[in-house]
Amino acid sequence: MIHYPNGKPYKPSEPSKEKSTSKKKDFSFSNRGKTLEEEINETNTYYLNQQIAIIHKKPVPVQIVKVEYPSRSAAVIREAYFRTPSTTDFNGVWNGYYIDFEAKETESKTSFPLKNVHQHQVNHMKDVTSQKGIAFTIVKFTTLDRYFIVPFSVLYESWLQMENGGRKSIPISVFESKTMEIKPGYNPRIDYITAIKKMITNEQ
Amino acid sequence: MIHYPNGKPYKPSEPSKEKSTSKKKDFSFSNRGKTLEEEINETNTYYLNQQIAIIHKKPVPVQIVKVEYPSRSAAVIREAYFRTPSTTDFNGVWNGYYIDFEAKETESKTSFPLKNVHQHQVNHMKDVTSQKGIAFTIVKFTTLDRYFIVPFSVLYESWLQMENGGRKSIPISVFESKTMEIKPGYNPRIDYITAIKKMITNEQ
Repeated sequence: MIHYPNGKPYKPSEPSKEKSTSKKKDFSFSNRGKTLEEEINETNTYYLNQQIAIIHKKPVPVQIVKVEYPSRSAAVIREAYFRTPSTTDFNGVWNGYYIDFEAKETESKTSFPLKNVHQHQVNHMKDVTSQKGIAFTIVKFTTLDRYFIVPFSVLYESWLQMENGGRKSIPISVFESKTMEIKPGYNPRIDYITAIKKMITNEQ
Repeated sequence: MIHYPNGKPYKPSEPSKEKSTSKKKDFSFSNRGKTLEEEINETNTYYLNQQIAIIHKKPVPVQIVKVEYPSRSAAVIREAYFRTPSTTDFNGVWNGYYIDFEAKETESKTSFPLKNVHQHQVNHMKDVTSQKGIAFTIVKFTTLDRYFIVPFSVLYESWLQMENGGRKSIPISVFESKTMEIKPGYNPRIDYITAIKKMITNEQ
């Protein structure tokens, strides 16, 4: 097992995710094989171009130790380490609302394992909710090709149950009854702002 | 002159700034010698601990190319490049408001040179303002030890004048008449949320 400098286990998916986001997007084919992160980045680009919402993915935090400056070319980072983020991956503003969320995938067909969620993300979403921001998680069941918007209150209820010895996953029945499903489209791919708009309207 | 892969000049201050944020803060001495970024990070930590606002600095975006996995120790990034950010450095939520800002220092005693501000930051703050977020710049005149909160509208007015052939800096008289000065304190160091609260109250 490989660990971060702070002792947390290293997830080797991060650098490859970083690389994949720089690939040229191929809009002429289907969305099969795209990661949820790529689908959300596409959605955010659409929102930005259409001036619907200004939402960006936060960069992966790294601790830079050594930089080389080759003559006549770009600076090269030669030694750096991954740091643990203290927030979620995406945030921004829509129509005066502060928007903050995390994107999670699972291959399971029956439930979402809470081990995909980290304590610092729960803490951050709790803080955001206290400050009247809108915090949620977008969960994709990759095998089922189903997408759900999970309000923080629903995630937090399951999280607290787990901490009190309850089950370590959220069954898909809870997604179907307490969250909002999004049908993926062409453009925007994952129209989570329309879903959030409906949720706010229903609450009022 | 060293350049980013995208042709923009590289500012060698970034990696050292990155390193300095990991240093242990010495609260027992004065704040002399601290960068504005460090002062704002301290302020944000105070806001977080007191649950006044949830504001974080965004990580420096890097393009990771090569990662090594030494056995029994942390993953090491061995090749990476700086990328141009598409947003400002700080954002978050306070009392339901989306907060977004950039921190800038100048050694000038008479004016703030607009070359310190980048086109992508202006575009981003304009987009944020359109979505009813609160966008501003915190400017520190380091030689004078004076701090100002510059609403985006004030910055944008000078920016447009410059684009139309006007002056390339904002004179300190404009700071004194159109922005809000903050007197630095002990904790919070740069109480920009209180300043924003006053600005909102005055507008209403």
